[in-house]
Amino acid sequence: GMEQFYPDVSEPVMLSGVAVGLAWTPVGGDILFIESTVMKGTGRLILTGQLGDVMKESAQAALSYLKSCADYFKIPDEAFRYWDVHVHVPQGAIPKDGPSAGVTILTSLASIYTQRKVKPCIAMTGEITLRGRILPVGGIKEKVLAAKRAGITEILLPEKNEKDVKEALETNGGAFSDVSFKYFHEMDDLIDYVLEPAENGAPQFKVEDKDHTPETTGNESE
Amino acid sequence: GMEQFYPDVSEPVMLSGVAVGLAWTPVGGDILFIESTVMKGTGRLILTGQLGDVMKESAQAALSYLKSCADYFKIPDEAFRYWDVHVHVPQGAIPKDGPSAGVTILTSLASIYTQRKVKPCIAMTGEITLRGRILPVGGIKEKVLAAKRAGITEILLPEKNEKDVKEALETNGGAFSDVSFKYFHEMDDLIDYVLEPAENGAPQFKVEDKDHTPETTGNESE
Amino acid sequence: GMEQFYPDVSEPVMLSGVAVGLAWTPVGGDILFIESTVMKGTGRLILTGQLGDVMKESAQAALSYLKSCADYFKIPDEAFRYWDVHVHVPQGAIPKDGPSAGVTILTSLASIYTQRKVKPCIAMTGEITLRGRILPVGGIKEKVLAAKRAGITEILLPEKNEKDVKEALETNGGAFSDVSFKYFHEMDDLIDYVLEPAENGAPQFKVEDKDHTPETTGNESE
Amino acid sequence: GMEQFYPDVSEPVMLSGVAVGLAWTPVGGDILFIESTVMKGTGRLILTGQLGDVMKESAQAALSYLKSCADYFKIPDEAFRYWDVHVHVPQGAIPKDGPSAGVTILTSLASIYTQRKVKPCIAMTGEITLRGRILPVGGIKEKVLAAKRAGITEILLPEKNEKDVKEALETNGGAFSDVSFKYFHEMDDLIDYVLEPAENGAPQFKVEDKDHTPETTGNESE
Amino acid sequence: GMEQFYPDVSEPVMLSGVAVGLAWTPVGGDILFIESTVMKGTGRLILTGQLGDVMKESAQAALSYLKSCADYFKIPDEAFRYWDVHVHVPQGAIPKDGPSAGVTILTSLASIYTQRKVKPCIAMTGEITLRGRILPVGGIKEKVLAAKRAGITEILLPEKNEKDVKEALETNGGAFSDVSFKYFHEMDDLIDYVLEPAENGAPQFKVEDKDHTPETTGNESE
Amino acid sequence: GMEQFYPDVSEPVMLSGVAVGLAWTPVGGDILFIESTVMKGTGRLILTGQLGDVMKESAQAALSYLKSCADYFKIPDEAFRYWDVHVHVPQGAIPKDGPSAGVTILTSLASIYTQRKVKPCIAMTGEITLRGRILPVGGIKEKVLAAKRAGITEILLPEKNEKDVKEALETNGGAFSDVSFKYFHEMDDLIDYVLEPAENGAPQFKVEDKDHTPETTGNESE
Ligand SMILES: [Ca+2]
Ligand SMILES: [Ca+2]
Ligand SMILES: [Ca+2]
Ligand SMILES: [Ca+2]
Ligand SMILES: [Ca+2]
Ligand SMILES: [Ca+2]
Ligand SMILES: [Ca+2]
Ligand SMILES: [Ca+2]
Ligand SMILES: [Ca+2]
Ligand SMILES: [Ca+2]
Ligand SMILES: [Ca+2]
Ligand SMILES: [Ca+2]
Repeated sequence: GMEQFYPDVSEPVMLSGVAVGLAWTPVGGDILFIESTVMKGTGRLILTGQLGDVMKESAQAALSYLKSCADYFKIPDEAFRYWDVHVHVPQGAIPKDGPSAGVTILTSLASIYTQRKVKPCIAMTGEITLRGRILPVGGIKEKVLAAKRAGITEILLPEKNEKDVKEALETNGGAFSDVSFKYFHEMDDLIDYVLEPAENGAPQFKVEDKDHTPETTGNESE
Repeated sequence: GMEQFYPDVSEPVMLSGVAVGLAWTPVGGDILFIESTVMKGTGRLILTGQLGDVMKESAQAALSYLKSCADYFKIPDEAFRYWDVHVHVPQGAIPKDGPSAGVTILTSLASIYTQRKVKPCIAMTGEITLRGRILPVGGIKEKVLAAKRAGITEILLPEKNEKDVKEALETNGGAFSDVSFKYFHEMDDLIDYVLEPAENGAPQFKVEDKDHTPETTGNESE
Repeated sequence: GMEQFYPDVSEPVMLSGVAVGLAWTPVGGDILFIESTVMKGTGRLILTGQLGDVMKESAQAALSYLKSCADYFKIPDEAFRYWDVHVHVPQGAIPKDGPSAGVTILTSLASIYTQRKVKPCIAMTGEITLRGRILPVGGIKEKVLAAKRAGITEILLPEKNEKDVKEALETNGGAFSDVSFKYFHEMDDLIDYVLEPAENGAPQFKVEDKDHTPETTGNESE
Repeated sequence: GMEQFYPDVSEPVMLSGVAVGLAWTPVGGDILFIESTVMKGTGRLILTGQLGDVMKESAQAALSYLKSCADYFKIPDEAFRYWDVHVHVPQGAIPKDGPSAGVTILTSLASIYTQRKVKPCIAMTGEITLRGRILPVGGIKEKVLAAKRAGITEILLPEKNEKDVKEALETNGGAFSDVSFKYFHEMDDLIDYVLEPAENGAPQFKVEDKDHTPETTGNESE
Repeated sequence: GMEQFYPDVSEPVMLSGVAVGLAWTPVGGDILFIESTVMKGTGRLILTGQLGDVMKESAQAALSYLKSCADYFKIPDEAFRYWDVHVHVPQGAIPKDGPSAGVTILTSLASIYTQRKVKPCIAMTGEITLRGRILPVGGIKEKVLAAKRAGITEILLPEKNEKDVKEALETNGGAFSDVSFKYFHEMDDLIDYVLEPAENGAPQFKVEDKDHTPETTGNESE
Repeated sequence: GMEQFYPDVSEPVMLSGVAVGLAWTPVGGDILFIESTVMKGTGRLILTGQLGDVMKESAQAALSYLKSCADYFKIPDEAFRYWDVHVHVPQGAIPKDGPSAGVTILTSLASIYTQRKVKPCIAMTGEITLRGRILPVGGIKEKVLAAKRAGITEILLPEKNEKDVKEALETNGGAFSDVSFKYFHEMDDLIDYVLEPAENGAPQFKVEDKDHTPETTGNESE
C-alpha cells in the first residue's frame, strides 16, 4: 500500500503541489499521492508513474481547465507558457488508470500553480469534466476505509456520491466516526476549499522571480 | 447513462462550449455531453474522452469547417492561431466512436469560438462533411427515446433522417408528444438556429481581452 | 451507397473543392465525393475519412504535383506556405483505400487552390503519378454502372482504360446511352478540361484577401 | 507489369527526375519507374509508393550522398534547405522493398537536383552505400529479360555483377543481342554517364528562379 | 556481471557524472553503473542502455526534480536550456527496468550538472518521487551481497529499508563486516552527502565556458 | 559476406568516415564496414542499414561522447549544430544489432568529424560506454578469423578481451601469424592511435569552408 510512501499523510502539506487521492484496486481501496512540480520550459505537460490513457486524459483536461480559468485562479499566462509542469504518481512501477483521480490531479496542479498548499489530512476522489464539473465514481466504501486506515480525517467527494457514503455509513457507521465528508459539484468550489490561503498579502504566483528551492523558501515545516 | 452528468439538460446552457448529442449504444440510446474550451496556446486541437479514430476525424473536420468559414461566423483568425482548443466528452473511461457526433462537436466548437451559448433542452445528431453538409445517421428511434427520457424538448436531425423519425412516430407516436423535431442539410443553418444571439451589441469574440473565468464574467446563471 | 450524400451530383458544383470519384467495392461500384478546403495555417495536409495508407500517399503525391507545377496552375506560393489544406472523404465511418481516387483527389485540390469549380455531373477515376501521368485502374464496368445510376453524364478515365470501356459497351451498350467518356494521359490536360474557367477576369487565387465564407462570396448557387 | 505505365520507356526522358530501374519479383523481373520532384518547402524528404523500410533507407542514403557531394554535382545548398523533395514509385498499391533500387533512386534524385534529364532507354540496378559505392544485387537474369522485353537498350550494373551477366549471356546469348551493358563501382561515375549534359551553357540549378511548370519550360518534347 | 565494467568501483570517481547503483536480477544482485554527460544542445534528455518504461520515467522525474530545485543545487538555468543531457546505463545489450535505480540516476545527474564527483566506493538504491522523497525498494539482501562482492564499502538506502538491512545482518552478519550503511528519506540530503565538494572556491557550473575535454581539465586522476 | 563490398579492406582509407568492424553472426564472423558522412543541416543523427535498437543506441552514445569531448578532438561546436551526420552500415537489407560495433561507429564518427582518415587494414570490435570506456564483447575467435580472411593485418580490441585472444592463439596460433593485436580501455587512446594525423599543419575541421566533393579535394587516392 501507499501508506509507506510519506511518514504520514500530513507530510504532503509541507510542499505545495502534492495532493492525496483515493484509489480503488482489485484488492481494496488505497491512498494515492499525486505530485506536481513546475520548472522553466516551454509549456509541456509531463506525466509519469505508469499512467494509463484515461488517467493521462484526466490530467490534460485538468490542465486545460486551469488554463481556461487562469484569471479566476490568479495564475499568470506566463506560468503556462514559459514553464513545464510534471505530474508524477508514485509508486513508479505500479500501473494506474481510470478517471477517478481527476479531482486529485486538478487539486495538485492548482496547488503548484497557485503556490497554495493543500490542507493536511484531506483525501479526495472524483472524475472531472473539462468545464470543471465533478462526476461520481465507484468503489466509495473501499476508498473511505483506506482513507480512514491511513489517518485521513476529511474526505471530499462528488455530490452524486453522497448516497453511496450514506449507504456505507449505515453498514459501517462506527468505523467512520472520526472522518468527515464534504461534497462538491464544481471544481472551483473544491479548490477554493481545499487549498490554504496564499501566504503573502497578494497571493500571486510570481513566475519570473519565484525561488523553487525547497530548502530556502521557508515553505517547508521540517 | 449520462443523465447523471449534469443535474439536468438545461445546465449546459450556463456555459458556452457545451452541447448535447445523442448516441447509439448496443444497449439503447443515450445522451452525450460535449465540452469545448479554449486557452491561450499555439492553435492545437486536443481531444480527450477515449474517442475513437472516426470521432477524432469528425472533430478535425468540424474545426477545419469553422476555420474555412471563420469570416461568416465572425471568428477572428487570432482565435485559431493563438489559442488551443480542447474538446472533451465525459465520461472519461467509456470509449466512444462513430461519425454521428459530428453535428454536436461542431455546435460545441461554434459555441466556444463565437461565445454564444447553445439554447437549452436541445439535443442533436448527424454526421458532418468538411464543407458543412449534414449526412444521415442510424439509431434514430433509440436516440429519440433517450432524449425524451432525459428531458430534451427539441431534437435537431439531418434532413435525410426525416423518414426515420416519421416511421418511429407512427409506432411510438404518443411517447413523443412533448418533443419537436427540426431538420437541417447544412451546418451553417443549424448553427444559426441553435446558438443564442451574441450577448453584446457587437457579438464578437474578443480573443485578446476575453476573460475566461467562469465565476467573474457573469456568463453563468447560478 | 453515397447517393444519399448530396441531394444530387450537381450539388457539388456549388462549391469549389468538391469532386466526384468512382470507387470499386466488393459489392459493386459506388460514387465517392472528395472535399477539400483551405484555411490559414502553416502548410499542413490533413486527411480524414478513414483513408488507408495507399490513399493517403495518393493525396500526398497529388499535393506535391500541384506544388511543383504551381506556376502553371497560377497558384501563388503563399497558398501552400501560409494555408493548411484538409481533404475529407465522406462517409467518415467507412474505410477507404486504393490508388484509383488519385485523379479525383488531385482534381479536388486543384479546384480549391485555383478557386475554380468542378463542372457538374462529371465523375472520374484513375491513379496518378508524382509527375502527373494517369495510370489505368480496375473495376471499370462496375464504376460506370454506379456513375450512371447516380445521374453522372460524363466520365473521365485513363487512356489505358479505353479498351475496358469498349469491352463494357459491347456487353451493356444500351445501358450507357446517356453517358459520354473522355480519356486522359496527363493530369494537366484533365484539370484544364474539368475545372470551370476562373470567374473574374484575372482568375487568380488571392490568398491574403480571399473571403472563404460560403454564404457571402456569391460562389454558391442556392 | 509496369510496361503499361508510360507509353514507352523513352517517355521518361521528357522530364527530369524520372529514372528506370529493374526489380526482381517472385514472378520474374520487372521495370520500375522512380519519379522525383522538388517543391518549395523546408528540406523534407517525402517517400510514397508503399515503400518498405529498406527502400526508404536507400532513399535517405541517396539523399545524404547527394548533399555531402553537393559541390561536385553543382547543386546549391539552397536546393536542400528551402525545397522539399518527393520520391514516388508507381504503382501506388504495390508494396516494394529491397536495396537494389538504390542506384535508380539516386539517379532520379541527381536528375531532379541538377535538372539534367536521364538518357532514354537506359535501365539500371544496384545497391548504393552512403559514400557512393555500388554493391552487387541478385536476380540479374530476370531483370535483364524484363528490361529487354520493355524496350530498354542499355543496362547499368554494379561491377561485381559482371560475372552474373556473363553467365546469363552464355545461356541466353541470342536473346540479349540488342542490349548493351555497362558496369560501375562508384555512383559519381554512373551519374556523370547517365545524365544528359546541362542544357544551358552553365548547367546550374537556379533554385530561386526556376520555373517548374512542365508545360512552359520547354523541357518537354511533346 | 557488471564487475568487469570498470577495473574497480573506485574508477568512476575519476569522472563526474558516474554513479554506482545496485540492481536486483532473477539470478541475484548486481552493481550497475549509470553514466551522465552533457553537451551543447537544446535541453533534450537522451536515454540509452535498453531502459524500460519505468526506468525512463525515473530519469524524467529525476531531471524534473533537479530543474525545479536548480537554485538549491546552484545549477544555472542555462545548463538545462542550452545543453542536452544523456544518461546511459551499460551494458547496452541487457534490458533494464524498474524504479529502484531512481536514486542512482538522480545522483549521476546531480553530479554532472554540479560538476561535483561522486565519492568513491559508494553504491546506492531507492525509488525517488518527483518531490525528492525516497521510497523503499526490494531485493535488499541480494543487492548488499553484490555490493560487497564488488568492493563497495558504503551503501546508501531508503529509510524505510533499514529494517530489511537489519534482517539481513542478523542472518549474514559476518559477511557484511566491512560495509557501512546510511539511510535517507530525502534526495537533497543524500546528494549533499554523496557528492564531493565543488573543487574551486565557488563551486558553480560555468556552462558557457566549461571545458569538457576529459584529458585536459585535470579532473581525471590517471 | 561483406568482403565483396569494397575491392579490398584498404579501400576505405581513401575516404574519411569509413571504419572496418568485426561482427559475430550465427554462421561465423564477418567484417562490417561503417560509413559516416556529414552534410549541412540542423544537427540530426540519421541511422540506416537496418540497425536494431541496441546498435542505434550505440551510435547515439558515440555521438554524445564526441560532443562532450569536442574540445579534446578539436571539433568545433558548429560541426554538431549546423550539420547533420548520417551513419550507414551496408548491406542495407541485412538486419544488424548488438553493442559490439560501438568502437567502430565511434571511430567512423571521429574520422568524419576530424577529417582524419582511418589507417588501412585495421579492424576493431568493442562496446563503448557514454564516457568512452571500452567493454569486452563475445565471439572473439570467429571475428579474428574473419578479419584474417579479409586481409586485415591489425585488430583493435577491448583490454578485457586480451585473455580471449590468448586462448584463441593457443588453439589456432599458426593461423594468426600475420595479424597483430592491440588492446584499449578508453576510446580517446584508440582514436588517437587509429586515425591518421590531420593532413594540414593545423588539423582542424573547417566546417564552414570544407569542400566535401570527393573528386575535387584530393583526398582520394584513385
Ligand atoms: Ca530555488
Ligand atoms: Ca478569467
Ligand atoms: Ca462555479
Ligand atoms: Ca469568409
Ligand atoms: Ca448555406
Ligand atoms: Ca512553373
Ligand atoms: Ca502536358
Ligand atoms: Ca529537505
Ligand atoms: Ca573540452
Ligand atoms: Ca583518457
Ligand atoms: Ca564538394
Ligand atoms: Ca570517384
